[in-house]
Amino acid sequence: MSIRIGILGYGNLGRGVECAIAQNPDMELAAVFTRRNPESVHILTESAKVCSIDEALQWKEKIDVMILCGGSATDLPVQTPEYAKHFNVVDSFDTHARIPEHFAKVDAAAKEGGKVGIISVGWDPGMFSLNRMYANAILPEGKDYTFWGKGVSQGHSDAIRRIAGVKNAKQYTIPVEEALTAVRNGENPELTTREKHTRECFVVLEEGADAAKVEQEIKTMPNYFADYDTTVHFISEEELEKNHSGIPHGGFVLRSGVTGWEKEHRHLIEYQLKLDSNPEFTSSVIVAYARAAFRMAKEGQTGCKTVFDVAPAYLSAKSGEELRAAML
Amino acid sequence: MSIRIGILGYGNLGRGVECAIAQNPDMELAAVFTRRNPESVHILTESAKVCSIDEALQWKEKIDVMILCGGSATDLPVQTPEYAKHFNVVDSFDTHARIPEHFAKVDAAAKEGGKVGIISVGWDPGMFSLNRMYANAILPEGKDYTFWGKGVSQGHSDAIRRIAGVKNAKQYTIPVEEALTAVRNGENPELTTREKHTRECFVVLEEGADAAKVEQEIKTMPNYFADYDTTVHFISEEELEKNHSGIPHGGFVLRSGVTGWEKEHRHLIEYQLKLDSNPEFTSSVIVAYARAAFRMAKEGQTGCKTVFDVAPAYLSAKSGEELRAAML
Repeated sequence: MSIRIGILGYGNLGRGVECAIAQNPDMELAAVFTRRNPESVHILTESAKVCSIDEALQWKEKIDVMILCGGSATDLPVQTPEYAKHFNVVDSFDTHARIPEHFAKVDAAAKEGGKVGIISVGWDPGMFSLNRMYANAILPEGKDYTFWGKGVSQGHSDAIRRIAGVKNAKQYTIPVEEALTAVRNGENPELTTREKHTRECFVVLEEGADAAKVEQEIKTMPNYFADYDTTVHFISEEELEKNHSGIPHGGFVLRSGVTGWEKEHRHLIEYQLKLDSNPEFTSSVIVAYARAAFRMAKEGQTGCKTVFDVAPAYLSAKSGEELRAAML
Repeated sequence: MSIRIGILGYGNLGRGVECAIAQNPDMELAAVFTRRNPESVHILTESAKVCSIDEALQWKEKIDVMILCGGSATDLPVQTPEYAKHFNVVDSFDTHARIPEHFAKVDAAAKEGGKVGIISVGWDPGMFSLNRMYANAILPEGKDYTFWGKGVSQGHSDAIRRIAGVKNAKQYTIPVEEALTAVRNGENPELTTREKHTRECFVVLEEGADAAKVEQEIKTMPNYFADYDTTVHFISEEELEKNHSGIPHGGFVLRSGVTGWEKEHRHLIEYQLKLDSNPEFTSSVIVAYARAAFRMAKEGQTGCKTVFDVAPAYLSAKSGEELRAAML
């Protein structure tokens, strides 16, 4: 019998989860739950239902894992604890600073409901976190580096769009090649914010807007751009649509460390992602962890977990025997 | 109280384990066990004992995890099941084809003794296996590539040394840059053995040996060299000692896959290691898994495990709270 998945929230991430489920023959999409009018939401999976979020609890016996595809700012802090009482859940909560608080709430709820809740799943937090952790455990003496990009930052694109005179915008975060090279050479550089990433902006202006003023406002925006070398390109809406409509991302996690009695040997561990679609890759990670949530719950485990707590084998559709024979 | 470690076998790997323990404050080396005369074995850790392997069982209550540092050909197939009856053990068994059989024996022994045995720990098998497995679980539709090097292959170096007229030799396995580039570009190439790696040999001849004949014998050696583009350099013993006495290694695990309803988006996951010392890095991985073996045994788990079965958090000296706050 397949693992029956529910999707709560049908934006980019929800659609990505739907596509990922179709690539995993041991899973099926049971239903999508939405705050919109269900009749207005058209999904790709013919066998699945679209329901109002208000009906979700009626699906308690028909869904093995509910995947929460809302945003980290306001949706997930409420939804994940709420639904973890009734379903095994997976979310992609990515507000790093608030993870401990989120963990505590989901843990209490999931234990109350006898369910498993896996939070902060994706690539950062997620696969990048895992790689930081493994590399630190293996090389206790060393230095960590995380670079993001080249990729679209939704938050920075939004920040530009809020400037008066801006009609549309897309922002790319780009790792600085020299910094990456220095890390790979084992130089263990101390890098400032400016030395690690540059920011490139493609901006469509409203008619009559002052380009110089907009550029100045972008480049001096605190937190978002002031600490970076930022390039601004003004382009047409057509060009933005044609060349910048994708949501690529990726990045690098590196750890440079030493071993030996005199610490005489250097080692470099590097993990790299190059993603055509940030939401679809995140969804693919989430779906693998949904399989883990299902299995861990079946074994009687309860409470909140993160990628650190999930034994890798739980993610794979293959059995232990198959994994040992084919991948070890 | 620290985790008390025993080392069985004091070669390159055993010495590496000793060095790694010194980098982990929650661990201490209790004793090294050797088949040699203990008085002839000099270790680096002043507080630890050197004992005959025959005394090992007397240390049952004084050692939390025994790390087995013998070879995969003849030592570990016997030693790991034998010692798993009495100790939590970790080994680096790396004969991929015989892992299922080794697993079964260690599993039976460890369950009989109520112990945990973690096998095939290191980087391949080990971290490379983990990365293959994670990447396959995340991107079920894709293609895997593993490249090794640049690094010293002990097996190939030994094979050259067995040729008549050869005094000493070192062989480097080198990944072919064009093949790596094609994989990174998402071309999903079908690669022959020859297209993936080249082999470079540094050979010291016995006096009066026929260089042309030795070179011919190397390049045509079945399994080891015949299927590769092989370069042979004849050098002096001094030059070999000066420039080729290290044991560097490393490599790349890549998975190139697709997502999306029409499989329209490509993704690349790449894991890379660049190691100054193959045995010391392997040892560092083993020591992290010794911590896991200790903790899993403490929780009452028993039997044989591989890296696939060990939740990442068990490897780290940090608590769950610390990991979530600092690394997620």
